[in-house]
Amino acid sequence: MIRSVVLLGAGNVAWNLGHFFAKNSVPVAQVYSRSAGSARSLGDALGVPYVHSLPDIIPGADLYLISVKDDAIFEVAEGLPFRDVLVVHTSGSVPLSPLDHFSRSGVLYPLQTFSKDFPVDFQRTPFFVEGSDKEVLKQLTEFARLLSPLVYEADSGRRQWLHVSAVFGCNFVNHLWGIAADILKQQQLPLEVLSPIMEHCLQKALNSGNPHLVQTGPAVRDDALVLEKHLGMLSDQPQWQELYRVISDSIKKSGHDL
Amino acid sequence: MIRSVVLLGAGNVAWNLGHFFAKNSVPVAQVYSRSAGSARSLGDALGVPYVHSLPDIIPGADLYLISVKDDAIFEVAEGLPFRDVLVVHTSGSVPLSPLDHFSRSGVLYPLQTFSKDFPVDFQRTPFFVEGSDKEVLKQLTEFARLLSPLVYEADSGRRQWLHVSAVFGCNFVNHLWGIAADILKQQQLPLEVLSPIMEHCLQKALNSGNPHLVQTGPAVRDDALVLEKHLGMLSDQPQWQELYRVISDSIKKSGHDL
Repeated sequence: MIRSVVLLGAGNVAWNLGHFFAKNSVPVAQVYSRSAGSARSLGDALGVPYVHSLPDIIPGADLYLISVKDDAIFEVAEGLPFRDVLVVHTSGSVPLSPLDHFSRSGVLYPLQTFSKDFPVDFQRTPFFVEGSDKEVLKQLTEFARLLSPLVYEADSGRRQWLHVSAVFGCNFVNHLWGIAADILKQQQLPLEVLSPIMEHCLQKALNSGNPHLVQTGPAVRDDALVLEKHLGMLSDQPQWQELYRVISDSIKKSGHDL
Repeated sequence: MIRSVVLLGAGNVAWNLGHFFAKNSVPVAQVYSRSAGSARSLGDALGVPYVHSLPDIIPGADLYLISVKDDAIFEVAEGLPFRDVLVVHTSGSVPLSPLDHFSRSGVLYPLQTFSKDFPVDFQRTPFFVEGSDKEVLKQLTEFARLLSPLVYEADSGRRQWLHVSAVFGCNFVNHLWGIAADILKQQQLPLEVLSPIMEHCLQKALNSGNPHLVQTGPAVRDDALVLEKHLGMLSDQPQWQELYRVISDSIKKSGHDL
């Protein structure tokens, strides 16, 4: 059983995990961030010791949880001053291999979008776990169930595809909402006028099981008149125009596949 | 005051409006669709007379509401057997001008996505109205307030931009959710594993007022390693790969604008 955690990282994911641990009696033994300010900020918020130098990390914790930018995972792992511990990262895109030199390693990937000022509902966040051996997998699965009832096994390949699907389904979607908001702003209208359609659209997509089946709009109707008009309206905004063209083309092609 | 409506059209918008009218004591005098089956289907559902020939449309209604595909609006308007009536269409993209030959004309544009099997909450649907004169505008505004408290004035130019923003914020977004679901399906996972992140992403975007400010993901972090890996993973799916590239580029550029 995992009774103590050292949290390596102080970004959005670490911040949310740390606060969840603190609220749910999972002892955080120490917080590390290479930024002294971030380490202090999260350490103070959680009321636990913090360090910003890897050699200062305490030994003996049950879990060393690395929650830093993808390209910093290896560096942090390399800098840990011991090898015979359980080390786990939280990335969707990084395989288990950068943690190979530890006796036990794993991945705990929350399929969620994190920010410091908008707390995540972990009960509704799926966690995907991977372990260097069956014992680790079992241990991590138990640990993940403290966080959420939605725990799945996923090897590195599967996890990478999950990440790609989240990029399409959340990151890219958010960018399109940003453009919609920009357009409304030019018309002196707040994003709120679009919120009912955004919410309705989401409910329809989730209800459908297959959003392609509930696709609406000029592209799926192949309404050439409207498509041409919209492209013309966007001629001052080549970036938006290109997005409009590429996404509409993709919708038209998907429509034919159904 | 508008006491009787002839509903011209039997598609998703007409279907939802008709049912709302029926439930809220707005008398629908007649339903028209050029498809006899669709006319009967909606007429029967509402318990009102229906026709599928334009010359059979009854005179004397207070409002002739054209809710058909954009490219059929002019044809339906032309075929109406009288001119001294109030004729209104519900399109976001079509200007008022195709209705110029009526003594009074207008537009009643609901910023919403409609389908027959997923009823719309009109109380949360903004309506944008335009009228051929002040009297019509007043009349339509009053009428729209029966449908929703969210009634705004919008001329044809503004309405077209609203439509473009809805295409980005709903139609395009739904397509990306469809692709995310396709990817999950390939991993034998249901769309539900993505629903918490989709909902959280929406709440964050709406809370922010400006979704660009809460953009997350590899593109806004300019995480070249992940971007390259994802593009490589999508090499078997050139359509998804192109979307990935174009949207990521757009996110990177928007990030620099902030």
